[in-house]
Amino acid sequence: MLKIVNSPLSSTWDNLCKRPLLEGEDCTSIVKSILQNVLQNGDDALLKYGKQFDSEKLTTIKVASTVIEESETNIDIGLKNAIDSVYKNIYKFHSYQKEKENFITTIEGVKCWRKSVGIENVGLYIPGGTAPLFSTLLMLGIPAKIAGCKNISVCTPANKNGDVNAAILYVAKKLGIQNVYAVGGAQAIAALTYGTNSIQKVDKIFGPGNQFVTKAKQIVSLQNVAIDMPAGPSEVLIYVDETSNPSFIAADLLSQAEHGKDSQVILVAKNQKIVEEVNNEINFQMPSLHRAEIAMIALENSKAVVYEDVNVAFDFINYYAPEHLIIATDNSDELCSKVINAGSVFLGHYSPESIGDYASGTNHTLPTNGYAKMYSGVSVDSFVKKITFQQVTKQGLISIANTVETMANAEGLQAHAAAVSIRVKQIQQNEI
Amino acid sequence: MLKIVNSPLSSTWDNLCKRPLLEGEDCTSIVKSILQNVLQNGDDALLKYGKQFDSEKLTTIKVASTVIEESETNIDIGLKNAIDSVYKNIYKFHSYQKEKENFITTIEGVKCWRKSVGIENVGLYIPGGTAPLFSTLLMLGIPAKIAGCKNISVCTPANKNGDVNAAILYVAKKLGIQNVYAVGGAQAIAALTYGTNSIQKVDKIFGPGNQFVTKAKQIVSLQNVAIDMPAGPSEVLIYVDETSNPSFIAADLLSQAEHGKDSQVILVAKNQKIVEEVNNEINFQMPSLHRAEIAMIALENSKAVVYEDVNVAFDFINYYAPEHLIIATDNSDELCSKVINAGSVFLGHYSPESIGDYASGTNHTLPTNGYAKMYSGVSVDSFVKKITFQQVTKQGLISIANTVETMANAEGLQAHAAAVSIRVKQIQQNEI
Repeated sequence: MLKIVNSPLSSTWDNLCKRPLLEGEDCTSIVKSILQNVLQNGDDALLKYGKQFDSEKLTTIKVASTVIEESETNIDIGLKNAIDSVYKNIYKFHSYQKEKENFITTIEGVKCWRKSVGIENVGLYIPGGTAPLFSTLLMLGIPAKIAGCKNISVCTPANKNGDVNAAILYVAKKLGIQNVYAVGGAQAIAALTYGTNSIQKVDKIFGPGNQFVTKAKQIVSLQNVAIDMPAGPSEVLIYVDETSNPSFIAADLLSQAEHGKDSQVILVAKNQKIVEEVNNEINFQMPSLHRAEIAMIALENSKAVVYEDVNVAFDFINYYAPEHLIIATDNSDELCSKVINAGSVFLGHYSPESIGDYASGTNHTLPTNGYAKMYSGVSVDSFVKKITFQQVTKQGLISIANTVETMANAEGLQAHAAAVSIRVKQIQQNEI
Repeated sequence: MLKIVNSPLSSTWDNLCKRPLLEGEDCTSIVKSILQNVLQNGDDALLKYGKQFDSEKLTTIKVASTVIEESETNIDIGLKNAIDSVYKNIYKFHSYQKEKENFITTIEGVKCWRKSVGIENVGLYIPGGTAPLFSTLLMLGIPAKIAGCKNISVCTPANKNGDVNAAILYVAKKLGIQNVYAVGGAQAIAALTYGTNSIQKVDKIFGPGNQFVTKAKQIVSLQNVAIDMPAGPSEVLIYVDETSNPSFIAADLLSQAEHGKDSQVILVAKNQKIVEEVNNEINFQMPSLHRAEIAMIALENSKAVVYEDVNVAFDFINYYAPEHLIIATDNSDELCSKVINAGSVFLGHYSPESIGDYASGTNHTLPTNGYAKMYSGVSVDSFVKKITFQQVTKQGLISIANTVETMANAEGLQAHAAAVSIRVKQIQQNEI
């Protein structure tokens, strides 16, 4: 049951937009000791942690190439076909994100451009355990491939049998990734940051994880490795009006709520009636869910906010800055222009969030916890550097020389001016 | 004088690529107390710090609109023209970086796209003091405008008279920026992060600064505000061969070395002869520089590395990942394809770094300290979020329903599957 809040004043928005924080001890000191141990003891530490946290049967960290090669025989044919099918959609959408070089003559003789070059070494963290997220490997691996990253390393915890999930391996095989490691948790982030005998040090680390992984990424992001973005529990905000279908909305709210006890779902509604209908549908659908217990706890943190004025509603939505935003109305086409802060937006009655989680083609690695105000989701951009180039002719240099000299001298940087003057002098001498 | 290192083995590269670290006490605790003070005391703390560090004459934090309006009468007409001229070049180059929406049908009935939306509230930090960097305001303000950022706040320390530099104000005026604050140092970063009565809290902070500013940005980047990139001292690497002009190269090395004692310049040469010629030219040009003393100290940290094999040379260059890379050879056109890690690249004999610092049109806010391996320089991308959208028709949903259901169930997320199934069921019932 969503608690209804009617027309809350904007002075209450800070409070309304607070994300639930699960109680729990601060894991900083544990994570720091794991990082330190991996830095000092490398593979030995990884194997020790793996046996301790993931599986006593773990014998080796690197997944053998034959195991990756044979992975497709270990998954259901239906799942294989599903993976093959979404691979195409995700690839297609992301392939348009690769920027082409665009040569721009800013003034005659001054040609500038930028070139996207793949980050050479990237590490992808894929959560395992109860829910091995092979979909996340698709979402990270495909843009990495398109970007042209040379070395892609995947870390994911082993299952109870000491193996890496076969669907994850099949996706790795499709992507041509040979370096898959049965390493999870903060120790995986340490290995990717510092390198070990088995695992190469990377330039950037991607992927979601539990609180230990998140804390480890935060710490190493200050140590010469980049990370994709700050991570937090997943969330959805749904905008509804009298044209929305309550049973669809309830299913969408529950699909987010089943992620975890700390998931948050928010309903923003044009009137109270639709909220009540959605609440009835939640009660109706909830009992049949496998993860009903988790969903019920998540819903306790959640609210329905009612605004008759659609502009105020969208001011609130942009203030909240949801990871996922579903605009489940007849006029979603029109309303979508009001979106300023959101990770990914789902329009109309037939675009549930789960199609974006898996299959529509957009990325599902998105900014949470209000970070949609300033961060984008993962894309090909996340896997490249855009290097700028400039090439100036003699004539071009003469044209801008005076400008550069004036500005450099005004900033007190005389040698900056001199680097131009010395060239101009030589050009002029040669012309005489 | 650059110390010559002949054909160093790749096992020595880690050491060769180490950036100079200036001695100095760790400023973390000072910065933390400044952040805390501004969080608690707001504008009062800002004014107190301003009087203490910048000018006793400081009376107010916000620069009056009339002062911004009249700024152009307080700068030299030559400087005004220079600013007007580079403004156009920078604007032109960056205007091509704004991505247009591109609607992609991944499969029939599934339309996806992404839209660039300006980050609403951004803060630009512009160093002042001895060298007020109005060029940096051009480099940050222009992409912010093109991106469509709504609220742009500028912080820069007051000069000895308690005023903000007139050239900085003139650039602000050209950009239509009304919120300029005479606040510098870590206290400026605190104000932009937490907000005060005068200064609005922002979503992302940009701009270079001293060690206090850098440390403050690093700390607040873990507190719900984003930053442009990790910052370090400026650096240039120049590649030369027998076709290079030693006097040009010496001028370029000196122009970087004058930035600060911790600047680093590296020469990578095809043969030792050209290095010796450059060294002679450095000795010849140095004495006439105003900042010769600074440059001399910076050059002590610097090296010339000689590799006959151009491929090994570029392996080294990519390992170093320079902020600025000048390829000062006849065949720079050809060599530029070898660049994998660099912030901005300058090609040929007439493209000194200083043209990119001011006038060519490319951005001068670039990754230092090896971060060019995984970060890009500032661009319009830095000031936007790219939000993805998807819109699915009934037919589109039917096409991907089975795929989504299969994957969701394989990941143990049954409610994700149900959000699709409930819609498919309704579509099929309505068709009967």
